[in-house]
Amino acid sequence: MASNMVLYWGSGSVPCWRPMLVLEEKKLQGYGSKLISFSKKEHKTEEVLKLNPRGQVPTFKDGDVVVNESAAICDYLEYKFADQGTSLLPKDAAQRGMVLQRMHEAQNLNKGLIENVVHYIFRTKPEDVNQEHLNEKKKEAREELKRWEEYMQKQGSGTYVVGKEFSMADVFVFPLLAFAVRGKLNLDPFPGLKEYYQRLEKRPSVKATWPPHWSEEPAGKDFFTGV
Amino acid sequence: MASNMVLYWGSGSVPCWRPMLVLEEKKLQGYGSKLISFSKKEHKTEEVLKLNPRGQVPTFKDGDVVVNESAAICDYLEYKFADQGTSLLPKDAAQRGMVLQRMHEAQNLNKGLIENVVHYIFRTKPEDVNQEHLNEKKKEAREELKRWEEYMQKQGSGTYVVGKEFSMADVFVFPLLAFAVRGKLNLDPFPGLKEYYQRLEKRPSVKATWPPHWSEEPAGKDFFTGV
Repeated sequence: MASNMVLYWGSGSVPCWRPMLVLEEKKLQGYGSKLISFSKKEHKTEEVLKLNPRGQVPTFKDGDVVVNESAAICDYLEYKFADQGTSLLPKDAAQRGMVLQRMHEAQNLNKGLIENVVHYIFRTKPEDVNQEHLNEKKKEAREELKRWEEYMQKQGSGTYVVGKEFSMADVFVFPLLAFAVRGKLNLDPFPGLKEYYQRLEKRPSVKATWPPHWSEEPAGKDFFTGV
Repeated sequence: MASNMVLYWGSGSVPCWRPMLVLEEKKLQGYGSKLISFSKKEHKTEEVLKLNPRGQVPTFKDGDVVVNESAAICDYLEYKFADQGTSLLPKDAAQRGMVLQRMHEAQNLNKGLIENVVHYIFRTKPEDVNQEHLNEKKKEAREELKRWEEYMQKQGSGTYVVGKEFSMADVFVFPLLAFAVRGKLNLDPFPGLKEYYQRLEKRPSVKATWPPHWSEEPAGKDFFTGV
């Protein structure tokens, strides 16, 4: 069935990494994997635009079904392959509610780290960076990370974002954390997240989907020093 | 079962309206409905903060299960009450993929209308408004609306966001459209959306959850003239 699937993705893109993790966890290896180059603007080619008029990745196709929003792809795959590979949304409604909560709450972590800090640095000429504004945004990112650290602390070591099983919440949280670590986030003030990160980076689905250009250049641009 | 549920919500809040629509559609009337006042900062009371440390609404509780992110509440309710009331996520995987896509794609409409235009106007002193910037953002909002107009046009009149049935995609799109119409968006250039809007505003779940202060003051602040 995976042979009917095509995923267009970019290396290091957090939204692309989510469905890639789901495809691995659901044992759907063998899907058509199309790595696009952002610098060559390959997400704006006719081939991608035909499937995704927004010209963004991820762009995903399963037979005739086209699903492009990362959360939609993840939910679609979990539903269609509910009993295959890792169960990413618990069948028990209460447990599922908790996983859904953290999965969607991760948008706050995305906002704190990516939208408010990374996008600001990317979109501002170095000479125009307002250090006071950036420091404020870094402080907000720290507060957000503290919140997730508390979640980890409350659960105790050896756990995932929600309880003792890897779930859709990890699919949404881990890539953000990995992006931040590569961007020089120091996890020492967040020991729960640090233990989680070091454990998860060894997980087979994570290793299989690790952004290839990160393997070549493990240290990224400095976004998060001082967070 | 609805008697175990409590929803804290604010009048006119798009994220609050989504779970309210789901509660109506799933025939869960009778839940504890707690209208909070934003101006009195009732979303920052101890009662809310105990359930939602972010101090935001919606805040939702079903027995011991606390779920606060709007998409998480909606998915939780649809899962727990799959066979009750309106089916909001189709059982057919291909159809479901399409609904999930539009449900999550609605974040672009949210960004175009609310984040880029409403938040900018709210957070900028009238004398500091950069008209050129605002016009650019209004133009982007128009482009986004055109995309959704095309979706409606392709399906023909009398349809919902995805096909012939009301779904989770409508739960995410309609409140944004209603917010925009109250903020003086002229729907005449978008006849498909206009027909859809006028039909949906008469839907029982929509009427039952219409923001109370909108009924008292049908005309809101002008955000969208010129879009």
